[in-house]
Amino acid sequence: MEIVSRVLSGDRRAVAKLITMVESFDPRAERALSELFPSTGNAHVIGITGPPGSGKSTLVDKLTLRFRDQGKSVGIIAVDPTSPFTGGALLGDRIRMNEVALDKEVFIRSMGTRGHLGGLATTTRDVIKVLDAFGKDVILVETVGAGQSEVEVVKTAHTIIITEVPGLGDDIQTIKAGILEIGDIFVVNKADREGADNTARELETMLSMNRYENGWKPPIVKTVAKEGKNVGELKEHIDSHLKHLKKSGELKKLRKEKTREELFDILRENIELYIKDHMCEKRIDDIIEKIMRCEMDPYTASEKILEPIKKD
Amino acid sequence: MEIVSRVLSGDRRAVAKLITMVESFDPRAERALSELFPSTGNAHVIGITGPPGSGKSTLVDKLTLRFRDQGKSVGIIAVDPTSPFTGGALLGDRIRMNEVALDKEVFIRSMGTRGHLGGLATTTRDVIKVLDAFGKDVILVETVGAGQSEVEVVKTAHTIIITEVPGLGDDIQTIKAGILEIGDIFVVNKADREGADNTARELETMLSMNRYENGWKPPIVKTVAKEGKNVGELKEHIDSHLKHLKKSGELKKLRKEKTREELFDILRENIELYIKDHMCEKRIDDIIEKIMRCEMDPYTASEKILEPIKKD
Repeated sequence: MEIVSRVLSGDRRAVAKLITMVESFDPRAERALSELFPSTGNAHVIGITGPPGSGKSTLVDKLTLRFRDQGKSVGIIAVDPTSPFTGGALLGDRIRMNEVALDKEVFIRSMGTRGHLGGLATTTRDVIKVLDAFGKDVILVETVGAGQSEVEVVKTAHTIIITEVPGLGDDIQTIKAGILEIGDIFVVNKADREGADNTARELETMLSMNRYENGWKPPIVKTVAKEGKNVGELKEHIDSHLKHLKKSGELKKLRKEKTREELFDILRENIELYIKDHMCEKRIDDIIEKIMRCEMDPYTASEKILEPIKKD
Repeated sequence: MEIVSRVLSGDRRAVAKLITMVESFDPRAERALSELFPSTGNAHVIGITGPPGSGKSTLVDKLTLRFRDQGKSVGIIAVDPTSPFTGGALLGDRIRMNEVALDKEVFIRSMGTRGHLGGLATTTRDVIKVLDAFGKDVILVETVGAGQSEVEVVKTAHTIIITEVPGLGDDIQTIKAGILEIGDIFVVNKADREGADNTARELETMLSMNRYENGWKPPIVKTVAKEGKNVGELKEHIDSHLKHLKKSGELKKLRKEKTREELFDILRENIELYIKDHMCEKRIDDIIEKIMRCEMDPYTASEKILEPIKKD
């Protein structure tokens, strides 16, 4: 496909167009991704999540500058699954640092929710693939919040950074308990604020309850992203984590897991499309009416719908 | 099935056993649910969600007493999707009010996360069906937090109550923006705390931006659940909402939507089981290895896997 060769030759506009195709479920996107696939697998994908107001975007900008200093090209994907109902893209309205936004070696894309469960992680995965094939050395996936869909999004990354901020109180901690287990590096940002040491200590206590069977103990870094303070240290931890993944064989394991998840996600989506294509809306409506009149239960209905698919 | 007739005849132990079967994906559960199905559709299902510490459980207990005063039997399902990784059930450890817990006409069940996306809503739906067939007039589904999986859980209800609490700050408001659109009734609990009027006003402002095309304007109730203050008023709003659903025809529309969602969820799950049954792990592993060596892309792999299913 023409768009694929354009992406591979470094055409930014082709990249933007292909991502739009991916986001809008254009049927040509899958063929393009299929052709792009052999050119992927080179980028280091870094996921960053944490509560709103913890300064993730500033952190991403400052990290980007560090990677650029090293001559690495960077892709940034900012995902906002805050509202599963309106499709609003909060992060899209945000203005990035000029230094980052105007750099031709940095590609930035904002994504709002697609409104269906699990879909956001799939789309993120596909956008990562486009930027990977486009030749980005580092891809930063930034997502707001700490709910289950955000977890699914950051789990597309090789290295997961969780940001915290002093003074958000106990309630937030409770919400976030589930996310601690997936973090590779923890950041207490806005560390010039009162309570930063406390927050770091709390994190340490919570983390000490986890077991690290893969040989990596997540470090906790105190940063003041706005002033660039300790961003260099954070960058070093990111590099160390990648080295650890490669050396320990974890990277291969991680890639295998992720490939499996992706394969099953694609299978699910394809089967759903297949059912919708092979059954007219009218028949589905009839079955729903029958269920509502209690003439059929949904389990039997599902069997009936799948019968011809399994046989013909 | 024997367990079904026992549930229908009011045997509490059979209900508890069937719910455990549902939770543990016992293959007999589906047959039982299928047999139970004609006896469902009578309960008023009420969902309650909100941030941790907003007093949902106390509110649920006090509401239960009100429904019991009216002679209605009550089922309570407490769902905790906080941690998608550990499977811990926070609410399960909580001790309910004695008055509620010892009442033979009240059935209480705590549920932790099942660890897979979307699964918690399906399980909740099935447990609701068991309690519905068991003869409960009112089923209260209580879930902590306000992420996407919590939203999916409360969306199983006919009437959705969102609880707020004074003084949680702006960050929480941002996280919760997406949930406002699904609330039928809003509660500012712990309204004896400073800032309750402010929180109610903020809610009102945020709600005023929504359009209500179905003719129901969500009321905001200030309660002090611990003292039972205004719980009666809340109960009246719940009853009014049910009346509104019935009178406006919204209940039928709602039931149709929910039936459709459920049918497709069951279809998805059954297809996945079918694939896993019809493909040995070895072949799936081979395909994953090929994808990792870039000899095949996941889209083509998915087509290859589905080919025999679509044909044979």
